[in-house]
Amino acid sequence: MFTAADCSAILDQVRARTPLVHNITNYVVMNNTANALLALGASPAMVHANEEVEEFVAISSALVINIGTLSPAWVTAMKKAARAANARGIPWALDPVGAGATAYRTNTSAALAQLKPACIRGNASEIMVLAGATAERTKGVDSSRRSSDALDAARQLARTTGAVVAVTGATDYVTDGTQLISLANGHPLMAKVTGLGCTATALIGAALAVEKNRLAAVAAGLSFLALAGEIAAEKSPGPGSLQLHLLDALHQLDAATIRRRLKIVA
Amino acid sequence: MFTAADCSAILDQVRARTPLVHNITNYVVMNNTANALLALGASPAMVHANEEVEEFVAISSALVINIGTLSPAWVTAMKKAARAANARGIPWALDPVGAGATAYRTNTSAALAQLKPACIRGNASEIMVLAGATAERTKGVDSSRRSSDALDAARQLARTTGAVVAVTGATDYVTDGTQLISLANGHPLMAKVTGLGCTATALIGAALAVEKNRLAAVAAGLSFLALAGEIAAEKSPGPGSLQLHLLDALHQLDAATIRRRLKIVA
Amino acid sequence: MFTAADCSAILDQVRARTPLVHNITNYVVMNNTANALLALGASPAMVHANEEVEEFVAISSALVINIGTLSPAWVTAMKKAARAANARGIPWALDPVGAGATAYRTNTSAALAQLKPACIRGNASEIMVLAGATAERTKGVDSSRRSSDALDAARQLARTTGAVVAVTGATDYVTDGTQLISLANGHPLMAKVTGLGCTATALIGAALAVEKNRLAAVAAGLSFLALAGEIAAEKSPGPGSLQLHLLDALHQLDAATIRRRLKIVA
Repeated sequence: MFTAADCSAILDQVRARTPLVHNITNYVVMNNTANALLALGASPAMVHANEEVEEFVAISSALVINIGTLSPAWVTAMKKAARAANARGIPWALDPVGAGATAYRTNTSAALAQLKPACIRGNASEIMVLAGATAERTKGVDSSRRSSDALDAARQLARTTGAVVAVTGATDYVTDGTQLISLANGHPLMAKVTGLGCTATALIGAALAVEKNRLAAVAAGLSFLALAGEIAAEKSPGPGSLQLHLLDALHQLDAATIRRRLKIVA
Repeated sequence: MFTAADCSAILDQVRARTPLVHNITNYVVMNNTANALLALGASPAMVHANEEVEEFVAISSALVINIGTLSPAWVTAMKKAARAANARGIPWALDPVGAGATAYRTNTSAALAQLKPACIRGNASEIMVLAGATAERTKGVDSSRRSSDALDAARQLARTTGAVVAVTGATDYVTDGTQLISLANGHPLMAKVTGLGCTATALIGAALAVEKNRLAAVAAGLSFLALAGEIAAEKSPGPGSLQLHLLDALHQLDAATIRRRLKIVA
Repeated sequence: MFTAADCSAILDQVRARTPLVHNITNYVVMNNTANALLALGASPAMVHANEEVEEFVAISSALVINIGTLSPAWVTAMKKAARAANARGIPWALDPVGAGATAYRTNTSAALAQLKPACIRGNASEIMVLAGATAERTKGVDSSRRSSDALDAARQLARTTGAVVAVTGATDYVTDGTQLISLANGHPLMAKVTGLGCTATALIGAALAVEKNRLAAVAAGLSFLALAGEIAAEKSPGPGSLQLHLLDALHQLDAATIRRRLKIVA
């Protein structure tokens, strides 16, 4: 279903094709997201104006929509871009940051989830809220739940939306509603750097741009980040260092490292 | 009034409670601010839409408002959020970036200062402009004045607004209009990294979230940053390194370091 | 036309005068741009509201306009600020990010190019599109062309707009339509860090603030970044490290280093 060889092959494809990944994302992570995509080997662009998103998505190989710092004009552009991507068969990934924290976030992510994303990636709370599995009020953008709490919700959300759903945490889960991939890379210090979840979704975008098997593409995107993060954490006394080493590790990631480190647990 | 033991106790509380700190801040520093709050042990969120700020502040433990890259929709949201915070007894901190540089900044910060912030932190020029102590045109966001020039203005601003006022510079001053704490940590290289003043205000937000004594909380917030900055500067050949080491130092800050390094000079 | 001594003299002037550089730039690079200007020795500010751009540019020594994440209110502010700068004899630099990728970008940069910028800096595709030398659809913000492909376009654009035009790539070219400076510093790893082109334009802004010879100022701005980048790359295993060392190298840049390393090839 997903092997280290698949992961390496997708990495090779990203580097060979340098896909243009169109991001409509939040202000907090734009710089990091762009740098992570560049370090991996993709070509990032951040474009959000209603005047140009449809035209821009048409020249892109994938689209990433992240609602982290949403506002009305941006939400309109997100919907336009998602529809334009679908019309052209361009895969797009949704990051429902903070779904459950406010009605605005919950409603916006629910509306976007109906627009046929190829992938939805969130933490346990976000996925449970989107699946309608809970009406609980989440605490901001962090999840106090374990990723395994959201497994049923993830399967259900995958079935109702047609998206491959990823729930990230200490263990990352990827499901299309039937099959399940469990990944156990990463490091706790990664939670002390802002926006690494957003980065994961962006790298998924790069993988979806080059790989038609969406389950494998999503697992590869998550693995690129988790592997780079754990390599970085080994040499980092704190989160400042981790951020730097993570970009270096993405740049240096290769088949041998993937083969040696990748932990597929189910 | 404020001791190394107080500073450590507040740090412990931040780490024990991981308070959600709601930031409405400028584009330049969002990433750094979020990372500094995470490195300290708090939980940051950046939320600015008029559609959700009131709902979001209600689940937060503190609010930070920074006018660095203000525009009309953001100013409306800032006022809404400040009023919502007050209605729920949630402390909020104001950073009047560039007050004095344009009428728009001066008027916006003056209006926000009337909405009962728990703390106002600025450089000497900003505090003097807000106190009405000067009508001089300031030079952008940097202050050419020394923090001690603004001591009378700070006391006056504290009395008229009810806020604890902090003036930062080579020496940092904290006053409630009567009492005064003077702090002498930090390093000149910190002025070569953008937005460390904004970071100071954000860390004050985290401290206010867990400590009712506002004078101590504000002094603690400033001290966290100044201590981490001077530790970082000792191993930094330039401002790029400083930024990385500062986050690592915030993450590693502990009672022994605070006791050994904290310089309370008055 | 341009020598290492000119480059050093302009650096000295930036540090002696710490010019206030007003940036209306994109969300992705705001933090990096501000930090690069600080590391060089200038004083950056990011100000974009229509309510204040004219007032702010009037206290600035240079203006930088970068359309990377444009939207209608920002475009209006860009035009206002450019006109206000011209009215006061304040030099301004244009960065037409992604011109050619969408009609919105092409039209906005063409309109701004008519507002008498002192400098226009772009990659080969952007300069060719602006010069009307091609109607090709560019691939996002990256150029697949070599900078030398755009030499004729650069000369023509300089003549029609009155701007000094810089085309950056493996070799950087600077022309006023007649004279040409070719610079060969830098390192390929710089292309893996987002927004270094934007940083180049910002450093050009700092140089224009202190040097009336625009050809020399633009060459100096480009050289500051290219030299810092190649010094940084020598000690960087990847793009994360490069970003950090680049800021340190800008901070440490001096006449001896410029004399030893600067490669003026024509």
